[in-house]
Amino acid sequence: MQPQTSIHIMTRIVKMIMSSCFLFYLFFTITACNSSDTTVKIEQINAGIWKISAGKPEIVNLLSELDITPRDEAIRKIGKAASPVAAEAIEFKIIDGKTYIRFPLEKDEKIFGLGLNFKTVEQRGRVMRLHTDHYSGRDDGRTQAPVPFFVSSKGYGALINSARYIDAWIGTGVRKDSKNPPIARDRNTDPRWSSRPYSDNMEFLIPAEGVEILLFAGPTMLEAVQRFNLYNGGGALPPRWGLGFWHRTPTLYSDKQVMSEVEEFKKREFPLTVIGLEPGWMSHAYPCSYEWDTTRFPDPAGFVKSLNDKHIKTNVWINPYISPATELYEKMEPYTASHSVWCGIVPDYTLPEAQQIADNHFKKNQLDIGVSGYKLDENDGYDYWLWPDVATFPSGNAAEQIRQIYGSLLQNITVRMYHKQNKRTYGLVRSGNAGTSSFPYVIYNDYYNHKDFITALINSSFIGILWTPEVRASQTAEEWLRRMQTVCFSPIAMLDAWADGTKPWSFPEVTQQVNDIAKLRMQLIPYLYTTFANYAFKGIPPVRAMNLEEGYQEESKLEEGKLDATANPYAMALKKEAKDQFMVGEYLLVAPLFTGETERRVILPKGKWYDFYTGKLAGEGEIITVSPGLDRIPVYVKDGGIIPLWPAITELENRQYPLEIRHYGEKTSNYNLYDDDGETYNYEKGECTWISLKVDTDTKGGKRGIVIIPENSKVWSFSDYRFRFMSSEETK
Amino acid sequence: MQPQTSIHIMTRIVKMIMSSCFLFYLFFTITACNSSDTTVKIEQINAGIWKISAGKPEIVNLLSELDITPRDEAIRKIGKAASPVAAEAIEFKIIDGKTYIRFPLEKDEKIFGLGLNFKTVEQRGRVMRLHTDHYSGRDDGRTQAPVPFFVSSKGYGALINSARYIDAWIGTGVRKDSKNPPIARDRNTDPRWSSRPYSDNMEFLIPAEGVEILLFAGPTMLEAVQRFNLYNGGGALPPRWGLGFWHRTPTLYSDKQVMSEVEEFKKREFPLTVIGLEPGWMSHAYPCSYEWDTTRFPDPAGFVKSLNDKHIKTNVWINPYISPATELYEKMEPYTASHSVWCGIVPDYTLPEAQQIADNHFKKNQLDIGVSGYKLDENDGYDYWLWPDVATFPSGNAAEQIRQIYGSLLQNITVRMYHKQNKRTYGLVRSGNAGTSSFPYVIYNDYYNHKDFITALINSSFIGILWTPEVRASQTAEEWLRRMQTVCFSPIAMLDAWADGTKPWSFPEVTQQVNDIAKLRMQLIPYLYTTFANYAFKGIPPVRAMNLEEGYQEESKLEEGKLDATANPYAMALKKEAKDQFMVGEYLLVAPLFTGETERRVILPKGKWYDFYTGKLAGEGEIITVSPGLDRIPVYVKDGGIIPLWPAITELENRQYPLEIRHYGEKTSNYNLYDDDGETYNYEKGECTWISLKVDTDTKGGKRGIVIIPENSKVWSFSDYRFRFMSSEETK
Repeated sequence: MQPQTSIHIMTRIVKMIMSSCFLFYLFFTITACNSSDTTVKIEQINAGIWKISAGKPEIVNLLSELDITPRDEAIRKIGKAASPVAAEAIEFKIIDGKTYIRFPLEKDEKIFGLGLNFKTVEQRGRVMRLHTDHYSGRDDGRTQAPVPFFVSSKGYGALINSARYIDAWIGTGVRKDSKNPPIARDRNTDPRWSSRPYSDNMEFLIPAEGVEILLFAGPTMLEAVQRFNLYNGGGALPPRWGLGFWHRTPTLYSDKQVMSEVEEFKKREFPLTVIGLEPGWMSHAYPCSYEWDTTRFPDPAGFVKSLNDKHIKTNVWINPYISPATELYEKMEPYTASHSVWCGIVPDYTLPEAQQIADNHFKKNQLDIGVSGYKLDENDGYDYWLWPDVATFPSGNAAEQIRQIYGSLLQNITVRMYHKQNKRTYGLVRSGNAGTSSFPYVIYNDYYNHKDFITALINSSFIGILWTPEVRASQTAEEWLRRMQTVCFSPIAMLDAWADGTKPWSFPEVTQQVNDIAKLRMQLIPYLYTTFANYAFKGIPPVRAMNLEEGYQEESKLEEGKLDATANPYAMALKKEAKDQFMVGEYLLVAPLFTGETERRVILPKGKWYDFYTGKLAGEGEIITVSPGLDRIPVYVKDGGIIPLWPAITELENRQYPLEIRHYGEKTSNYNLYDDDGETYNYEKGECTWISLKVDTDTKGGKRGIVIIPENSKVWSFSDYRFRFMSSEETK
Repeated sequence: MQPQTSIHIMTRIVKMIMSSCFLFYLFFTITACNSSDTTVKIEQINAGIWKISAGKPEIVNLLSELDITPRDEAIRKIGKAASPVAAEAIEFKIIDGKTYIRFPLEKDEKIFGLGLNFKTVEQRGRVMRLHTDHYSGRDDGRTQAPVPFFVSSKGYGALINSARYIDAWIGTGVRKDSKNPPIARDRNTDPRWSSRPYSDNMEFLIPAEGVEILLFAGPTMLEAVQRFNLYNGGGALPPRWGLGFWHRTPTLYSDKQVMSEVEEFKKREFPLTVIGLEPGWMSHAYPCSYEWDTTRFPDPAGFVKSLNDKHIKTNVWINPYISPATELYEKMEPYTASHSVWCGIVPDYTLPEAQQIADNHFKKNQLDIGVSGYKLDENDGYDYWLWPDVATFPSGNAAEQIRQIYGSLLQNITVRMYHKQNKRTYGLVRSGNAGTSSFPYVIYNDYYNHKDFITALINSSFIGILWTPEVRASQTAEEWLRRMQTVCFSPIAMLDAWADGTKPWSFPEVTQQVNDIAKLRMQLIPYLYTTFANYAFKGIPPVRAMNLEEGYQEESKLEEGKLDATANPYAMALKKEAKDQFMVGEYLLVAPLFTGETERRVILPKGKWYDFYTGKLAGEGEIITVSPGLDRIPVYVKDGGIIPLWPAITELENRQYPLEIRHYGEKTSNYNLYDDDGETYNYEKGECTWISLKVDTDTKGGKRGIVIIPENSKVWSFSDYRFRFMSSEETK
């Protein structure tokens, strides 16, 4: 909202006067308030949600440009709750033209979230600048999803709703006016001296003269996250095919090569539901045309149709930068930034005109011929090729603001296009921010550390995004299998062979095991689909950090550092935290192994837990050490867990499949299984069914399974229900 | 300059009105100018120096808080010159409340400087945020000396004189309105595609509504650097003892332990001119008292005197944060920040009151008892313990501004204190910025990569600071010796044994060689002292990048990257550049070897170069490969080079020593040797002598050396002049 070259002089003068007025107003309110505090307005907007407005928040924020409808009714259902940190306890000041925010912290309070971190789960004690970017190998705030939302172990969360780079000091800065000040110690002689004295506050700096904060009560952390997700429109419900197995073919593959790869999957009986095409499907890429390359794909419509006929969906890669060699270029040019990226123009997608032009072009070239969705690449930016922060955009929005929400904008435009056609899409995106939880997109990136990928999977659940630890290549068969095992327990089970041309069977030693896990993924679709329905309607993250699980207790430890003038001159301590196990859906605890490991520790929350494969008791609220061998990824089921499974299909038809209903442990229980047509938005009009799967005790004291389908309800996906009591089998 | 709690309400109202007026003025000038460009004032302030004022520059900048007197006369002597990029060719805009700056770039133009980088010398193609901080292992702008000064191979330099974090895109952003736009290519099929297309501009973003730029003409890069240094008061002239050998003792050593360490130096005949005391000399450290610990140092004055009597100076470590356990605390408290560091208060050293309080305390506890100077630690900041950017300071200056200049401020205060006593000091500092070239402080840090230390040594010469690759510890005798060899060719030859308790003789296998190089350092003092005099009076950096040397040509090469989905998904090219050799003074080229290397390439600039040790011809404007063995660091002398050498003394008395004058090569030449009392500022009043050392041809065609001492001039340091014709000896 700055004076721009393109804006007429009269508009500028009006803006000038407005700016001056605003500034008078601002100074007035500042001076009217106690000392340098700024005006703060607090408004409760739903059960356990407050909007706090400090100073003059900017018009463009993380949510303002997105089509989001809060799921108010679902929020009300979670119920009323107070926030342990009341809106009034948050301190605001305008300092040096920026907004200062201070939240109190208590002694044992833990903080989670604050962006898609790859190496750490607990964020207390960290300093970051939340900034959309390639992840660089450090949890410094530069990440594909720098969501400024945190959740506290005290049972509340807060979104700092600003599309600016946000500086955060999470329990590091020590204020002189602290209520719990640390004690000064002499480093010379006092062994209790620490390079990082205790801090009782979280501080943020927003480079704008005002900000909006959304405060979410718990009482549990999970409920705070649920309120956050529901406020953002709820979670995404992917089409059912999206939960199958994806394979992205090498970038320059032709239609024939893709079809022969598909045949190879069939021949080898490997599951396949989605084929992803990489840049080579396009006539020009980096920058893009979004038009088919007719040398490699002479009949795009026929190609997509023949895949659809085989029950395989087509997903296409794009990036946001438009090639001069396309008819789109001239139309879009007036709505683009001052800078180019890879010589492509950069649409200002905060402008409705730019959105409409893209929509028309995408619809014509992809949606209308049956393409199921996109892989939206390169919207996370990387300083060396992205538009710099000095770039200007025709909307007048700052380059920084557009960078923070570019991935969100692209998700919004494409989801809206599919929604208009009453078709669900599911795709990949390189970046996202707050407000995208309802968008059916999964974040991925170039970084490729397997352990860190799992930490990202855990962290995604705090901040309303989805993440896939996609498989691309591996050094060894062991690594290949270990990666396949984890990706099959993630939002998208995908092999991305764009550059390396790997196949699921690239490592013959483990081909059978990879086939097994891919088939297990297909079997789990009913469970995963329900898991996503709970995300959509209740805001419960489908893949969850253990910290969001009731009865989970983990003490992170500080390991003392040893003084060393070259490696550790401050004798800094290192934090050890569990960041390698997670929950999938209501019942499954997944504890992956990584290359080189033959055993691992698993922290089991309170209650009994059972081995997924055998039904045997694994432990009860304790830390166990397991050595499960290479073939299987350790998975545990909560006592009373009900897991609905399909047969081990390799292609996904739109029809009913027999359902095996596994029950684990001793507890009687009830599981609500979700079903709908799997591909349209008709569920929004109520066309969906919740089937009750119940296990109770029969008159003889044995277990009994009951399936209750509500009257007059359609069932799309299931037939031949068969219960299997896993733990009883084992004990018999 | 924000409303502060501590400022009276009337002052605030006055400021309010002033702010409003300023804003009207700003909007007025913006609208009065062509489109969104802002008002720009250009003023030539000396020969080849222009001050450019865009918008409303902030009052506090990198130079405003320092006692600097430009050496106007010396600048005039360099002569008039035009800048190849005229002041008018620099573009300014106010965007989103920030100042945008654009410099044009030409095809083969190279850019140097922009902070103390450790891994790169050429800066074109890089993106950074210049920000005072610990160096993190990446050249991203976070460094101990983020000086926003660059020098271009076209022969000019510019200082962006803002004490803000400055974002810089050095030939990366591509503008649509570029005059030399790159060509869009299809990445799918065009092998010429690059992830980083050609950019013809340098762009900067200053988070303030105006900025001052100082533009320095060449015509050579060296002259642009000289003008920059002279504008900042010229270079530092250390006391002569500062150029000897320094040893910092372990942190908890008592006076007796230090004295016995000194005795050990004498016994082993190792040179020693300065003893450095680490935190343990103080009664409280981290935070500090600046008062002596009387258990370890019962008689500080006696201790310092007894060292002085042995011709050994005392340097003491301090950091800026003040312990509650000191009388200083209460006095300083009103002038400190909102936040503490290690529970110590943080003085606002932009306030004269704070400066005076520190001055009094330092004078009483150090200067008055004969301490020669400081090691100013921890003023570079590290986000995890420094005051955060949300901190407020009583001056109203932003935390960001104070962070950018905190090291400069501490240098300024302590140098001023010594200057008032007409005593020169020489010390170490953890950070600096533009404007500190005249301050006798050398930057060091915790990072410890030997090769990168040399790259920093090279880069220091572009930005008006001094750097030492201090030796602390080593894994092997080889590394120990290699590090000792380079530190003896740097501004401070120092072993810093604070944590590890190493001694120069810690590796018996190389004790003799370490002794040799330390003694060579002592021999070189006359040459080094003159080198520094040329820094002081002419602005010529004492240690210089090869790129500043006439006749040096080095083609940096791009090595093509190989596509790999996990390691290099953009097939990025890697730049190879020479960053491991440098000039010391007028004649010496130093080409160090590093652990594990037995040979290396040396790029010899135009003309003949001779081996320093033997006088033999080494090569002529060519690249040579040398394998000099472990004992010696390769050093080459320019044809006609005259190197004055003292005897291999181990202690430095204030008296005359016999002078060996080495001449290398065939060229006749003239060297101006500098002399003064070596410890006061009397040289500023003209009490100094330039001795002319001449080598010409005698009547028989042989070489002849002549020493010309100006009439009525005092000579402090030299006697018994003896010429030695190194290259002739060799040929005889």
